[in-house]
Amino acid sequence: MNLTIVKVGGKIVEEPATLAALIKDFARIEGPKLLVHGGGRSATRLAGQLGIEQKMVDGRRITDLETLRVVTMVYGGLVNKNIVTSLQAAGINAIGLTGADMDIIRSHRRPAGEIDYGYVGDVDKVDAQAIARLIEAGLVPVIAPLSHDGKGSMLNTNADTIASEVAQALAPLYDTTLTFCFEKAGVLADENDDNSVIEKIDRVTYQQLRDQNIIAGGMIPKLDNAFKALESGVKEVIITRADALAIPGRGTVICN
Amino acid sequence: MNLTIVKVGGKIVEEPATLAALIKDFARIEGPKLLVHGGGRSATRLAGQLGIEQKMVDGRRITDLETLRVVTMVYGGLVNKNIVTSLQAAGINAIGLTGADMDIIRSHRRPAGEIDYGYVGDVDKVDAQAIARLIEAGLVPVIAPLSHDGKGSMLNTNADTIASEVAQALAPLYDTTLTFCFEKAGVLADENDDNSVIEKIDRVTYQQLRDQNIIAGGMIPKLDNAFKALESGVKEVIITRADALAIPGRGTVICN
Repeated sequence: MNLTIVKVGGKIVEEPATLAALIKDFARIEGPKLLVHGGGRSATRLAGQLGIEQKMVDGRRITDLETLRVVTMVYGGLVNKNIVTSLQAAGINAIGLTGADMDIIRSHRRPAGEIDYGYVGDVDKVDAQAIARLIEAGLVPVIAPLSHDGKGSMLNTNADTIASEVAQALAPLYDTTLTFCFEKAGVLADENDDNSVIEKIDRVTYQQLRDQNIIAGGMIPKLDNAFKALESGVKEVIITRADALAIPGRGTVICN
Repeated sequence: MNLTIVKVGGKIVEEPATLAALIKDFARIEGPKLLVHGGGRSATRLAGQLGIEQKMVDGRRITDLETLRVVTMVYGGLVNKNIVTSLQAAGINAIGLTGADMDIIRSHRRPAGEIDYGYVGDVDKVDAQAIARLIEAGLVPVIAPLSHDGKGSMLNTNADTIASEVAQALAPLYDTTLTFCFEKAGVLADENDDNSVIEKIDRVTYQQLRDQNIIAGGMIPKLDNAFKALESGVKEVIITRADALAIPGRGTVICN
């Protein structure tokens, strides 16, 4: 059976207009599906209002205890429940989850190396059977970018990573497509031209595009992540814009 | 089969020491169980930090849109997930839920009468089958005091009410005991003497105790709620102190 896993960034789910459009498009996806979301902008805003200084390193949030409270409130509460209530209103029986709920995503705190990221978790284990039981019951899991350490602490975990780990865990059970929604229409040959979407990238073309510096910066971890997912049995990884989610053939398909 | 539903107020679940004690006691309860929690103090604190003025009428929070965001973050995120991660650490496979998740608690916004409570929901329907499926799967639902209107809005709903409505909905499926944890050891004959717990209250003694003004004020809605639950098939309602949760025979038993 097919399973569509969609990851959407905070920008899309935090604004009423883009959230409404996303819900509409997501609702049109047929068959079993699952949503993973971010929420970084809202977390940064709330932290700012509370006077909690935020430090980012390479786009990753240094998560001290105060910040962990903020992301637990924002990702697990505000953003997650906003999506769930909206999906329910669209007739989709959603269930919001963090990694702690049903123990679906266990992680360990990233060891402090050069940088101490604080309460940030690297994923150890995804309970695919538990998630699959929800899907089999006709539910649509909505997963916040939070895992837990099994010792009583929530841990902040990047949403792309959560989506990728969940897709890999579910790949033996479903023909899994993992779609990353992005501000751009896909991976672009010319980053200023939204019409320059590269339709297909395999390992060979990926290396070429990196050598030519067409793929650089923040796209590299995204694509590394995608290839890692494919290696673990995910059928297809798609990078597209949220408003093209329900349109087949739009965006960039990453394949082996 | 027996089912134990426990309602705990915010005071207990918001402080690390009392939360740890609660988790320990709750873990000792045998058989299927479910927890409903409050979180009002944390909501009031966060609202204060954000400069959102809180108005209470008869202990009920007037919930404007800003306050709805606060309670969604605090009840659905911070408090709920704190409990879930702590239960997981104690080996209890908890799942945190609001009324929107799996559509378990549908409500409508309370019509503005003399007082407009804002985004406050009166419960219409609890999906007992959905909750029972989780219980049958060995999970322990942890329910935040939030319902939803099915039209895309979360609604703030009193935790005692949620506990009572859930117990009534599950009563046809389980021999259901509903325990309200409270700051006092039970319903007291002398409110200043914790050793004056009234062991048993039925409808007749309830009327007498009210006539004698022994039961007054905030205890009246609590007991009315309890009798309503009994009428709907709940087997037993217990009012006790959280630290006596795992001790049979402690507290006040409300019965028909």
